[in-house]
Amino acid sequence: MCGIVGIFGHPEASTLAYLGLYALQHRGQESTGIVTATGETFHRQAGMGLVADVFSRDVLDRLPGECAIGHVRYSTSGDSSAINVQPFLLQHHRGPISIAHNGNLVNAAEVRTELESEGSIFQTTSDTETILHLAAKAPQADVVDALVDSLRRLRGAYSLVTMVAGRLIAARDPLGFRPLSIGRVDGAWVLASETCVFDLLGAEYVRDLERGEVVVIDVAGLHSLKPFAAERPAPCFFEHVYFSRPDSMLFGESVQGVRKTLGERLFAEHPADVDVVVPVPDSGIYAAMGYARAADLPFEMGLVRNHYVGRTFIEPTQQIRNFGVRIKLNPVKAILRDKRIALIDDSIVRGTTSKKIVQLCRDAGAKEVHVRISCPPTIGPCHYGIDTPLAEELIAARQNVESIRDFVQADSVGYLSFEGMIAAAGVQQGEICGACWTDEQPVSLPYDRAQQLGLFEKARR
Amino acid sequence: MCGIVGIFGHPEASTLAYLGLYALQHRGQESTGIVTATGETFHRQAGMGLVADVFSRDVLDRLPGECAIGHVRYSTSGDSSAINVQPFLLQHHRGPISIAHNGNLVNAAEVRTELESEGSIFQTTSDTETILHLAAKAPQADVVDALVDSLRRLRGAYSLVTMVAGRLIAARDPLGFRPLSIGRVDGAWVLASETCVFDLLGAEYVRDLERGEVVVIDVAGLHSLKPFAAERPAPCFFEHVYFSRPDSMLFGESVQGVRKTLGERLFAEHPADVDVVVPVPDSGIYAAMGYARAADLPFEMGLVRNHYVGRTFIEPTQQIRNFGVRIKLNPVKAILRDKRIALIDDSIVRGTTSKKIVQLCRDAGAKEVHVRISCPPTIGPCHYGIDTPLAEELIAARQNVESIRDFVQADSVGYLSFEGMIAAAGVQQGEICGACWTDEQPVSLPYDRAQQLGLFEKARR
Amino acid sequence: MCGIVGIFGHPEASTLAYLGLYALQHRGQESTGIVTATGETFHRQAGMGLVADVFSRDVLDRLPGECAIGHVRYSTSGDSSAINVQPFLLQHHRGPISIAHNGNLVNAAEVRTELESEGSIFQTTSDTETILHLAAKAPQADVVDALVDSLRRLRGAYSLVTMVAGRLIAARDPLGFRPLSIGRVDGAWVLASETCVFDLLGAEYVRDLERGEVVVIDVAGLHSLKPFAAERPAPCFFEHVYFSRPDSMLFGESVQGVRKTLGERLFAEHPADVDVVVPVPDSGIYAAMGYARAADLPFEMGLVRNHYVGRTFIEPTQQIRNFGVRIKLNPVKAILRDKRIALIDDSIVRGTTSKKIVQLCRDAGAKEVHVRISCPPTIGPCHYGIDTPLAEELIAARQNVESIRDFVQADSVGYLSFEGMIAAAGVQQGEICGACWTDEQPVSLPYDRAQQLGLFEKARR
Amino acid sequence: MCGIVGIFGHPEASTLAYLGLYALQHRGQESTGIVTATGETFHRQAGMGLVADVFSRDVLDRLPGECAIGHVRYSTSGDSSAINVQPFLLQHHRGPISIAHNGNLVNAAEVRTELESEGSIFQTTSDTETILHLAAKAPQADVVDALVDSLRRLRGAYSLVTMVAGRLIAARDPLGFRPLSIGRVDGAWVLASETCVFDLLGAEYVRDLERGEVVVIDVAGLHSLKPFAAERPAPCFFEHVYFSRPDSMLFGESVQGVRKTLGERLFAEHPADVDVVVPVPDSGIYAAMGYARAADLPFEMGLVRNHYVGRTFIEPTQQIRNFGVRIKLNPVKAILRDKRIALIDDSIVRGTTSKKIVQLCRDAGAKEVHVRISCPPTIGPCHYGIDTPLAEELIAARQNVESIRDFVQADSVGYLSFEGMIAAAGVQQGEICGACWTDEQPVSLPYDRAQQLGLFEKARR
Repeated sequence: MCGIVGIFGHPEASTLAYLGLYALQHRGQESTGIVTATGETFHRQAGMGLVADVFSRDVLDRLPGECAIGHVRYSTSGDSSAINVQPFLLQHHRGPISIAHNGNLVNAAEVRTELESEGSIFQTTSDTETILHLAAKAPQADVVDALVDSLRRLRGAYSLVTMVAGRLIAARDPLGFRPLSIGRVDGAWVLASETCVFDLLGAEYVRDLERGEVVVIDVAGLHSLKPFAAERPAPCFFEHVYFSRPDSMLFGESVQGVRKTLGERLFAEHPADVDVVVPVPDSGIYAAMGYARAADLPFEMGLVRNHYVGRTFIEPTQQIRNFGVRIKLNPVKAILRDKRIALIDDSIVRGTTSKKIVQLCRDAGAKEVHVRISCPPTIGPCHYGIDTPLAEELIAARQNVESIRDFVQADSVGYLSFEGMIAAAGVQQGEICGACWTDEQPVSLPYDRAQQLGLFEKARR
Repeated sequence: MCGIVGIFGHPEASTLAYLGLYALQHRGQESTGIVTATGETFHRQAGMGLVADVFSRDVLDRLPGECAIGHVRYSTSGDSSAINVQPFLLQHHRGPISIAHNGNLVNAAEVRTELESEGSIFQTTSDTETILHLAAKAPQADVVDALVDSLRRLRGAYSLVTMVAGRLIAARDPLGFRPLSIGRVDGAWVLASETCVFDLLGAEYVRDLERGEVVVIDVAGLHSLKPFAAERPAPCFFEHVYFSRPDSMLFGESVQGVRKTLGERLFAEHPADVDVVVPVPDSGIYAAMGYARAADLPFEMGLVRNHYVGRTFIEPTQQIRNFGVRIKLNPVKAILRDKRIALIDDSIVRGTTSKKIVQLCRDAGAKEVHVRISCPPTIGPCHYGIDTPLAEELIAARQNVESIRDFVQADSVGYLSFEGMIAAAGVQQGEICGACWTDEQPVSLPYDRAQQLGLFEKARR
Repeated sequence: MCGIVGIFGHPEASTLAYLGLYALQHRGQESTGIVTATGETFHRQAGMGLVADVFSRDVLDRLPGECAIGHVRYSTSGDSSAINVQPFLLQHHRGPISIAHNGNLVNAAEVRTELESEGSIFQTTSDTETILHLAAKAPQADVVDALVDSLRRLRGAYSLVTMVAGRLIAARDPLGFRPLSIGRVDGAWVLASETCVFDLLGAEYVRDLERGEVVVIDVAGLHSLKPFAAERPAPCFFEHVYFSRPDSMLFGESVQGVRKTLGERLFAEHPADVDVVVPVPDSGIYAAMGYARAADLPFEMGLVRNHYVGRTFIEPTQQIRNFGVRIKLNPVKAILRDKRIALIDDSIVRGTTSKKIVQLCRDAGAKEVHVRISCPPTIGPCHYGIDTPLAEELIAARQNVESIRDFVQADSVGYLSFEGMIAAAGVQQGEICGACWTDEQPVSLPYDRAQQLGLFEKARR
Repeated sequence: MCGIVGIFGHPEASTLAYLGLYALQHRGQESTGIVTATGETFHRQAGMGLVADVFSRDVLDRLPGECAIGHVRYSTSGDSSAINVQPFLLQHHRGPISIAHNGNLVNAAEVRTELESEGSIFQTTSDTETILHLAAKAPQADVVDALVDSLRRLRGAYSLVTMVAGRLIAARDPLGFRPLSIGRVDGAWVLASETCVFDLLGAEYVRDLERGEVVVIDVAGLHSLKPFAAERPAPCFFEHVYFSRPDSMLFGESVQGVRKTLGERLFAEHPADVDVVVPVPDSGIYAAMGYARAADLPFEMGLVRNHYVGRTFIEPTQQIRNFGVRIKLNPVKAILRDKRIALIDDSIVRGTTSKKIVQLCRDAGAKEVHVRISCPPTIGPCHYGIDTPLAEELIAARQNVESIRDFVQADSVGYLSFEGMIAAAGVQQGEICGACWTDEQPVSLPYDRAQQLGLFEKARR
């Protein structure tokens, strides 16, 4: 779960990168950083926290140069520390190189072990660093060739931006798990994980990077390479369901539009005899709008989210929790009292949060609570960059829908079917990655999956 | 624009106060503080910034005691500085006293001048401190009597909580401009500006403080006094329109419900021949839902708000602004393109922001933009605690609706009538304060209004 | 124990004040502050810590104006907190007023109680604030008259600088306990506790403030007032023995020169049959030089002081202490081994430190340790601004010299006589304050001395 | 210019390391750090600033474990930044390894270039990191063997401590440029650059590491290796003259004693017909004591040093400088006026500081100023770890003594001869390194000396 941005050819590159990261904040709230280049001198500012916490006018002023890359990150549990904050900036014999990466490399652990036994010294516990060490040892004279050579040895998901003196390089893996788009503004090039960045910057959307494409931007313009063998497409559908911003265009479709269609299909598959349709904010809002429209029922904000909840929130003590503090969601009694409600959300993970929300609605007076989920049951972890828990923690990996209904104490539970889901975006099975719902993995995983998920935890300093 | 909270009789009083302020964060994002008492020893932690910035577990741990008061504040321009962060904590000859105040005292400047000429030394530039100096000089032996005596000399709006050793005192002015409610949780008393605090704490709502009521809470329970002469009621209706949280109950009504009714009446008074109803988020959402429902039109989130916008956001340079950066609101082209829209908001202040939003919608492809406002034109400043600009900055103070329409470049503009507005809450003129729309002031103002608004600016250190 | 400085008429007044405080750092390491004035606008920067910790170029840049006062402070135990950091800056009806005070007012507690009962609200627990409240209530129109009126009601030690719009005011109490000198540099006036400030600034020493003199500096120059009745002189002799810097001129004499004479007289009164004279650094160095010269013995730095010891030093745990850590003083075995030494210091307070130092010398191989003290036994606390412990903690208040020798485990102990001490500076008894050695108090103390020493501890927030 | 410390086998290893660094603060005030180990988990705390700034009780509490190494550092110009703060802590395939190094490797730049071309990625611009990369690539299974193998490839000065899981390793280069001593306290082993650490800790001095010795400490005790071919001895004599603490024993001699002898010989070679001997504090104090004793003249502190001068001192503006501010040294007029003085210092570097001090003495009234230096003229830079300027900046590299006298405006200048200097410590030429005075280099330098001095500046991020 990360967002990346790249700027080439603008006198205020760091400010544009900052604004871009700001628009991508939903893709990672744990840490952020920007690296800029003035000739061969690179400048880096990065830290734990939100974009607005890490950057100030003073900090941006320490980032001169017309070329910049940036990163926001939400780490998977275990390797969350300052040393892993991206973009990374290293020196190798070809000069300074900086990288920002979205995705997850499935064979990074085994490649790292091999490199370390040959004397390479790693600075982080992140899979991303493996790319740089491979490139440092690659025999090619030019850094782009060395980078392509490195990526050939790696499997998994990567949308990345790399900066060397005078050039900005972007790459998307051959299966195209994660998005990466190209835009232009004020004569400059902009690369970004999502198109909402272009809207914020007032930039023009040019096109998406293709699967397996490597793009090199220099003063002569944009050069496209296709150095990898063709593979099946596997764009992550969960980006549509939950992860991307509703105002982005993703893989050619409006995220907001797809979500409303998911809601409409959800009603068609699982209607409910209720008085009112209530979303779990913010993620369930658009599916709920679609559901309400299809059902011709009132759409009501029966749960209000507290938008000031941030990373620094102090959890109340157990004693206070016991009398029922509601930190993130506040039920609106005036709406819920004596009503039968359809409660629309995008997923049930462990089931514990859903259970609390159902209870919250009942305490506020709801007579019936019918849970409707705008995608199929989540049965497996994601190996390509989304922070889904391991299978043993996923309620749907162990229990059927009726057991889940019983656990969350709802009057009924309905999940959208896989076919219904992908139809909402007009795609076929085999054209997307839906491994978290089907366990059908688009790339071969290492024998020991757990090792791959744990990543380099053993190597942590 | 402030929010206050008081806790009496809970071992984790400071944590409850923290959670209460958290729920009231929308009432003031500039500074916050908590004071607690252990016997005669008072503890204060306060600072500039959001509740989540100022408080941490460590900071709360430095606030022991079973009694606490707290404050969030958005200062009017001019006296925004650390010395004015509430709650104030002072020593006087009766011992320590702490106060948190919501509202604005209209004769504070003249009383202050008088006190200073007698040798009183003020520490802040806030009207609130006047109450404490009056009390320090009052002849009564008991601090409650001294406080009541002081309040008799002051005119204007005050909902306040005061803490002295062993007692929590709350007061609401005789006209009842600002809200203040009483709740109970886990055996403790809770006082709060809005009822959403009780929902967050899992507390039970008991009742509102009455107009002109003074409440003293000690170990023997709650004691109610009515020391002031009766006056007309003047609860601020702008709390309903904009300021209070949608999930609060205000002056006996659901804020969310009133806002939807405002939207329904707005459609009745100013229908629009459009394809879709779009709110200006977040404040216009509920009125837009009412409008859409009354109009039987689709309600769509055609503008998306970036929720990470905070106090520390770095404004882009003029050069970047020029190519159209959209920091706070992002228009969704997929919704707006080729559509006629009704754009629902709660007010037009200077007109410049509304103009930008209309332009944003047009740039995203909207064919027609019909602006609808869920209250009457704002023609005057507020003297009772809301940070409305001076009349000379208010577009509706100088221009008629057609001029405003021309300025904001909308296809049409419609304001809800005053009668329509108050009918939405089932009240009569004379039962509320609507001075910002009518200039009918419920209390007499000093001859030099400007002085009162400027407050103690001259006294600023 | 404080140091004060005032600057009038220099475009970089705050930087001069900073440099002055820097030279006075030995007079107080706990907190420091500077207040400057530009017309009627006053600016204050202050904090806990050393001058170099509190001030930076940025902080000084926030202190514009041609007039400045500054303060360094070491608080007596009990009232050490940020609220008491001087200079104080207050608003009263005559405008802003700022004050920095060195000394101790013996009747401040009783005056404060009286003022509070009349409604004055104090902000600090310091005796200094009393002066300002008295002035605020004084009937005189002009602030200088009001200030003089206030000082007439107070007894004790004060050397102070006060700043009001357009004027710098300095005053020294009628007995002249603490020093205060006038200098000029680059056309500007400089006031400072010690003349070493003038040396650092390259300023010319003009003269000392006289006892009971009030000086007003404005654009027309320096005006001298003598508003108080004549009293006996009582300059603090402990300033010569220990407190002032060796490179200052104090009450007309060179501090370094007086200390060497003290050492010479100490040898005359208490010779020792030793091999080498060793000072306890840094305070005993000059007396040791005088002693060695008079004795015609080698002067050796047998104890080395670690100059990086600062406020933030982390005390080792008890376990580590037990094996003998020496934080502040390191004995030099090459010098002390097998030697008979005269160990010269300026005082024995509780005796525990002296005992440790004697042991340190013995552990390093000293055969005999003869302790020589360059003043008489300290038998009482100081009521005029030096942080001496209460009598019950002073070893010389309870024990004779032989008992002290036994306690510190020295081979012999010799104190300089009172007569010998004052003769070193060419003064007579009755011309100085030596109350800590004689308990003869130059001003009458309140009945309850302990209350006066505890000051306003009860009032602490 | 660095200091190092190592602790093995104490439950409060980090606190002992802290105290040790504290005693070594004079060897480096720019940055400091400590690394500790609990089994295979290493903990690091480090930062820019003094030991007392970087460490607090909280910080030490985050450094558990019975084994610790620490470092203080003053960087040569150019590579002063946070990334170079030692001890370094890295992961390689044999596990975590941490290193702290005092000295300078003369062939590090060429070895680094070679390693980088093979794919090694360096994290710092320090020569020290080269040791770790060589060890990471060395074929030996055990880390001690790999480390020895690495050191064989490097030339120059190193006294270092290295920590791996379960072992503390120390090494001193075959010529023995820098000191390193072994001590014991409370059952634990202590390694330190200077013996003053043992005094502070109350530890027993055991012995110095021999030249070319490698020591491995584990739970079985201390094991000594001698893996390198024999070379001539080259302990740095400037450590005696200036760098080491006066209370340390260095290469078997008392530093303080050697300095006094230097002063005595200086008088023998360059007597002066003066009234008083005045040291430039603090470095000239002991030589001045020796000079005064040999001359039978009074020793006087005619210049007082301000001990609060720290890293954060704010330089006054040019305007203020012009009227003669004296920040670091204050002349004592009472001593200097109308006197002929011998001014004793340990070196003249660029000449500009000496010139200012001479002027300072004359301004204070000195009639004659005779400068005496306790070592020969400094004619070349140090390649082994002392931060001496390049030859072109050294006044004695370009000018004879008479020109220097003219430049500093002294009445006479006298330098101690090389022979006189080394005789003071009872050593012969060829038994020490005196390259800064003779340009006779004990190890062969790379062809391009400047490159070696500039170190890895090109590689700086």
